Amino acid sequence: MNVDGRGAAATDTAGLEVLTREECLRLLAEAPIGRIVFTDQALPAVQPVNFTMLGTDIVVRTSPESKLAQATRDTVVAFEVDDYDVATRTGWSVMVVGIGHAVDDPEERAVLEALPLRSWAPGPRSHFIRIMTDIVTGRRIPRRP
Amino acid sequence: MNVDGRGAAATDTAGLEVLTREECLRLLAEAPIGRIVFTDQALPAVQPVNFTMLGTDIVVRTSPESKLAQATRDTVVAFEVDDYDVATRTGWSVMVVGIGHAVDDPEERAVLEALPLRSWAPGPRSHFIRIMTDIVTGRRIPRRP
Repeated sequence: MNVDGRGAAATDTAGLEVLTREECLRLLAEAPIGRIVFTDQALPAVQPVNFTMLGTDIVVRTSPESKLAQATRDTVVAFEVDDYDVATRTGWSVMVVGIGHAVDDPEERAVLEALPLRSWAPGPRSHFIRIMTDIVTGRRIPRRP
Repeated sequence: MNVDGRGAAATDTAGLEVLTREECLRLLAEAPIGRIVFTDQALPAVQPVNFTMLGTDIVVRTSPESKLAQATRDTVVAFEVDDYDVATRTGWSVMVVGIGHAVDDPEERAVLEALPLRSWAPGPRSHFIRIMTDIVTGRRIPRRP
């Protein structure tokens, strides 16, 4: 349960509001940019990407030769979106941990090709990464009274 | 060399502009929020934090009991900042890979306590993480002509 019996948002030990899975998926669907966390030559790596959702899955387009394509093939990755306001020092973040799949099946590719997803980066982007939202967590810094 | 002989910015194989270390450190110094990438129970994790720079080191304040404090103690972490513009579909990102240190030395703590760094999240934040900018890379999506 992320919401206590009185309907108030739950807070974690650090005093941050805990977001429900539904709230996290809604925020994911609205975010233009997310960040994929993967491993590159045994070191942690993180790269921003634009993306879209297909149901509850995250879909990213990249070049088949990219590090990202190579490093997210049937591997656990993290994916993060956030937004914050410097003036009020508030913000929220959502993190997904799930399996990244390289989409090779022609029928599945055809479905993803039809999505309104064009990579912001230049060049051909014929490789699709699909990330399952197995674990979804989110936090919000509440406004001070 | 990140800049070719004609003074133009170098581009990577994906067509993105490659930022110099100096440019990356300047962007890091101006960013209010970054994201620390670490490992939590053998899974990738990423958490946004506000931070400041001390020379070329990244300094973050958190609670000593936090996952972040536990998971970044003398361990390699990644740290990412970015900014993007949805209208023009342009943006940049900088990634640091370096050792995260828990600051236990009283003299070093005193220096960090004097920095203008207050955590956005509520609650006491007496633990300092200092991340060396050992590897610094950055990319920019250029504007289309």
